[in-house]
Amino acid sequence: MVSFKNDYSEGVLPVIMEALLKTNLEQTVGYGEDEYTAKGIEAIKKAINFEDCYVRLLVGGTQTNLLTISHILRPYEAVIAADTGHISVHEAGAIEATGHKVIELATNGDGKISLDMIKKVYDVHKNDFHMVKPKMVYISNPTELGTLYTKEELINISNYCKEVGMYLYIDGARMASALASEKNDIELTDYPKYCDVFYIGGTKCGLLFGEALVITNKELAEGFFCSTKQKGATLAKGRLLGIQFTELFQGDRYYQVGKHSNEMAAMLKKGVLEAGYKLKADSYTNQQFFILPNKVIDEIGKKYRYEFWEKIDEETSAIRLVTSWATKEEDVKDFIEDLKNIK
Amino acid sequence: MVSFKNDYSEGVLPVIMEALLKTNLEQTVGYGEDEYTAKGIEAIKKAINFEDCYVRLLVGGTQTNLLTISHILRPYEAVIAADTGHISVHEAGAIEATGHKVIELATNGDGKISLDMIKKVYDVHKNDFHMVKPKMVYISNPTELGTLYTKEELINISNYCKEVGMYLYIDGARMASALASEKNDIELTDYPKYCDVFYIGGTKCGLLFGEALVITNKELAEGFFCSTKQKGATLAKGRLLGIQFTELFQGDRYYQVGKHSNEMAAMLKKGVLEAGYKLKADSYTNQQFFILPNKVIDEIGKKYRYEFWEKIDEETSAIRLVTSWATKEEDVKDFIEDLKNIK
Amino acid sequence: MVSFKNDYSEGVLPVIMEALLKTNLEQTVGYGEDEYTAKGIEAIKKAINFEDCYVRLLVGGTQTNLLTISHILRPYEAVIAADTGHISVHEAGAIEATGHKVIELATNGDGKISLDMIKKVYDVHKNDFHMVKPKMVYISNPTELGTLYTKEELINISNYCKEVGMYLYIDGARMASALASEKNDIELTDYPKYCDVFYIGGTKCGLLFGEALVITNKELAEGFFCSTKQKGATLAKGRLLGIQFTELFQGDRYYQVGKHSNEMAAMLKKGVLEAGYKLKADSYTNQQFFILPNKVIDEIGKKYRYEFWEKIDEETSAIRLVTSWATKEEDVKDFIEDLKNIK
Amino acid sequence: MVSFKNDYSEGVLPVIMEALLKTNLEQTVGYGEDEYTAKGIEAIKKAINFEDCYVRLLVGGTQTNLLTISHILRPYEAVIAADTGHISVHEAGAIEATGHKVIELATNGDGKISLDMIKKVYDVHKNDFHMVKPKMVYISNPTELGTLYTKEELINISNYCKEVGMYLYIDGARMASALASEKNDIELTDYPKYCDVFYIGGTKCGLLFGEALVITNKELAEGFFCSTKQKGATLAKGRLLGIQFTELFQGDRYYQVGKHSNEMAAMLKKGVLEAGYKLKADSYTNQQFFILPNKVIDEIGKKYRYEFWEKIDEETSAIRLVTSWATKEEDVKDFIEDLKNIK
Repeated sequence: MVSFKNDYSEGVLPVIMEALLKTNLEQTVGYGEDEYTAKGIEAIKKAINFEDCYVRLLVGGTQTNLLTISHILRPYEAVIAADTGHISVHEAGAIEATGHKVIELATNGDGKISLDMIKKVYDVHKNDFHMVKPKMVYISNPTELGTLYTKEELINISNYCKEVGMYLYIDGARMASALASEKNDIELTDYPKYCDVFYIGGTKCGLLFGEALVITNKELAEGFFCSTKQKGATLAKGRLLGIQFTELFQGDRYYQVGKHSNEMAAMLKKGVLEAGYKLKADSYTNQQFFILPNKVIDEIGKKYRYEFWEKIDEETSAIRLVTSWATKEEDVKDFIEDLKNIK
Repeated sequence: MVSFKNDYSEGVLPVIMEALLKTNLEQTVGYGEDEYTAKGIEAIKKAINFEDCYVRLLVGGTQTNLLTISHILRPYEAVIAADTGHISVHEAGAIEATGHKVIELATNGDGKISLDMIKKVYDVHKNDFHMVKPKMVYISNPTELGTLYTKEELINISNYCKEVGMYLYIDGARMASALASEKNDIELTDYPKYCDVFYIGGTKCGLLFGEALVITNKELAEGFFCSTKQKGATLAKGRLLGIQFTELFQGDRYYQVGKHSNEMAAMLKKGVLEAGYKLKADSYTNQQFFILPNKVIDEIGKKYRYEFWEKIDEETSAIRLVTSWATKEEDVKDFIEDLKNIK
Repeated sequence: MVSFKNDYSEGVLPVIMEALLKTNLEQTVGYGEDEYTAKGIEAIKKAINFEDCYVRLLVGGTQTNLLTISHILRPYEAVIAADTGHISVHEAGAIEATGHKVIELATNGDGKISLDMIKKVYDVHKNDFHMVKPKMVYISNPTELGTLYTKEELINISNYCKEVGMYLYIDGARMASALASEKNDIELTDYPKYCDVFYIGGTKCGLLFGEALVITNKELAEGFFCSTKQKGATLAKGRLLGIQFTELFQGDRYYQVGKHSNEMAAMLKKGVLEAGYKLKADSYTNQQFFILPNKVIDEIGKKYRYEFWEKIDEETSAIRLVTSWATKEEDVKDFIEDLKNIK
Repeated sequence: MVSFKNDYSEGVLPVIMEALLKTNLEQTVGYGEDEYTAKGIEAIKKAINFEDCYVRLLVGGTQTNLLTISHILRPYEAVIAADTGHISVHEAGAIEATGHKVIELATNGDGKISLDMIKKVYDVHKNDFHMVKPKMVYISNPTELGTLYTKEELINISNYCKEVGMYLYIDGARMASALASEKNDIELTDYPKYCDVFYIGGTKCGLLFGEALVITNKELAEGFFCSTKQKGATLAKGRLLGIQFTELFQGDRYYQVGKHSNEMAAMLKKGVLEAGYKLKADSYTNQQFFILPNKVIDEIGKKYRYEFWEKIDEETSAIRLVTSWATKEEDVKDFIEDLKNIK
């Protein structure tokens, strides 16, 4: 069984496993106060070209989102997100469990929210004390549908947020794939300029686990370490995160993870289109969404793992295929050939 | 610098690192639904000799505590714990952050709560709707002061909890050390008999990270997976937990981790007593608490890492030394010699 | 200035004020354990013709909603509601503040949710542990747009909820107006048959304050009194609620409150239609929604208080007018005449 | 049956009932934005001689405490209180339900916390990220045992809080009784000088219900109205609070409520001492705590309502008697005579 189900099917980049092995018996202090964590943080600050920020290395994405949002917002404040956003649907109510409403915006099938959508919902809420106060905008880049924001869109949203006093938070769970996409015009060094806080994904970009949270609006960082402990998000052996991120940001390794994933994804996309099927969303990153007849999906399912996305009509459905740093070219080729052979 | 600061200073048992390396490029499904997790759970069920229970593998102890307690209690219910308990002092208000009061019992310096203490506080609360309702008793074994409950104490508390309708939850963060202690008379197979829920610690017993939560009162497990996701406690690459626990419960490996730790701790204790100093608590597990003059502590601190515990008076303080599976005998010997040589 | 802004502009039905005055110096026990509260509860049980239920008298609607929903749901469970529902928009995130997601359904302009909408959202969520679990359906009758559910709709939703194991909760903040509406076919005695829990509004139906919560699914009531205290929702002088509800349910007084309100509302509606303006929603209860040119609204605003509802386009807006037990016929007539006279 | 069980056994000062009756049919806007509320707030600002503060009128004490504390603290911050404090024991975990730990200080039987106790606990917590951060000190004056803080104690605690950056919050549920006590040296006008926030109790001082929250540290007030709504703490007919507080602060009416209560309490105390019994706490306010043989208590209970406080030993218990603005001198005299006649 070959899996295109997600980008966390395999372990870790072998070079990182080496580093873990090599340091295994060293003694370090716990909870991220060790020198490896310090090194990992330095590597990230260098990569984003932004020294004056607060960085914390965390284990997972949902944990990062719930911790960050609950730490920053006051009780009556809410976060605006796409209704397809990870925090809206796929975190089992994690944000609400910390007491905050996610104001969900209906998107146009591409998983992106526009400045106009944000403005409209902000205006409705701003002066009515019977309503929560929107105080943060959450966007994922790439989105949960594999699409990308343009730099212009990012800047416009950022400017608006500043204007009305909202924070901008970017979920970069698959940021490597965004950075390496042919359609991307946002550099890694842009994020600290335009966001108050964002995270650079590791789990879905080649690590065993790990997300690097970067708080550029430093007054938001006060007490963050204590919140981290409170939410059960401090790893005792914090060095595991430090070592991994140090290695991940050696040279252009992070970019290469994205590049390979995207190439494999593009190959899949091309093959599926050639086979005569349609896209559910036009993605240039490592998640691809295809609309296929149910019986084709059943055939595919005998050899490949995929993610069921949604029912389209009685006869067809959308599925998601995801590639990673570890996806093999021959597996992609086999998949395409198998697909083409299904009658 | 040699560290006796805690039992999570090093990485992981080398044999487990091997297993991670070997499986690194395999593809598995995520979030703990893979075959390695299934194997790890089977190994645990066999070790506790209790098949009919719900087991979930989690990353850390605070996460496990907050998730378990908040999942089980209804909003107006509270948990009873020692005022030295991990959930009372060292989790940054993690339990309260999920909405529940920790009713703290003052202990007699040994970190243990007695049946009488529990009864007394239960009686005060039971019929007054102005007060929270105690619904769970939390005990750590070994306690945060390295002491142990006897089997008789465990059974008595368990019986009382059943009688009045409270749940008994045992935090076994350092359970390997308890199991291997010369003073212990509680078998691993006793825990499922006498508790509703307990966890077997991995992070402090030789793993990179990992705690195995066992819910023996199965009706408490309903919806647990969803709670896990909501609290950000599902590891995407769940197999990492599965592989580690499978290996940890090969043969008597878990017991051996405790045994070595305890032997090193006993050597430390003997040496400190020989050097003429006193114990803060009489521990037979891998945490040792010594009362030393501040200037001795300062000397020690030049070569060894320790945990400051508390001020005793103007001239003396208590420190904690902790040993692990990786503690080296020569380091212990050096420490004792160095201590004896301090004038 | 005459107010049609809401149905809580005045104090209390004079006959109830008399009862409060008469009992003012009597001594009673606190927190709703007095004989007046017992009498009020008996009056309600008789009115709903359902003895075997748990009734609690509370001060306000948002308090009742947040208390009830948070008491009943487990942490990972969510409540389904219309996106125009009171809990969705007008309670400042009160439900989320207790940790629960409100799954909002887009309605068709009438503020009602249909069985199909509920089914669809339930099916999406039911088997995915990454998503919250819908466990309760919340409907307001009359809705926030003044519309009514039919008995058939109520029964169908109730049956579906039972089938899949969800609870049905009905917010009856303006239930008197529903009961007395010419379009209504749901008796007060139907509510306990088809819901697990509902509340009978007092604040908007003639009381100083007060909502009577009725839990017919009695296992949901366990510990409710304690939750009430925890949420700050117990009134020390609970008798004030008992006396008011006892009086409100004398004879057909509750019905008469609705009847007068509805008659005044119908007169308003007729007048506005005669004046050539349109309805925003076709309401047969005491809230009326009219679409008027902004300059007409400005004129009206010089003599009457109204609630701005929403912008329709650059030139027109919707406003809400609300009537109550205390609305005077001459004020309604004046309003209509004034409206007709605006050029 | 005559009740000394509490100070909320009766309705409201008759002169206030008159005011409610007189205004009953007037129309006002809702949620505390009416002119009566404005007047009530003005009356309070004048009484405390402090114009530049934020005042909100709320219904009950637990509601006020949970709302205020949760609004002000950030997620990882905690409040320090006496273990006999209302928020510690008698609010069913209301503070914890909003996510915050109450750090409870053991008192010396008088319900008061000292500067030393505060300092000690602050020092333990301040630098350890594994622990919550104390950010607020909560004291009740009078305390739950009827005792009073001196002005010097208040100033010292206030100064220390300022020094280390904690907020001082005073619960004045029975403030009228404090103000009128012969032992009191804190003026009403002192509170805004030394606290960041405090509330002036109404429910236990002659109102139907109502507590006036005063936030003198105005930056803490941002968004407070929205929090109020979120916690279900806005009264739709807010004028009821406005009218009551306006009347309560006419002339020295508030003081007189305390004076009469205290006189009745002093008479009770004198009588009980004369009868040869002991005090549980030496109170000079309207709560009195007596130690009596259980059989005497049983006799008393046939004619009078009292609050059982705690078991002293097998034969004796402590009870609480409370007086109010409505306590009748003849009832107190009867009680004393009856007590003296019990053999």
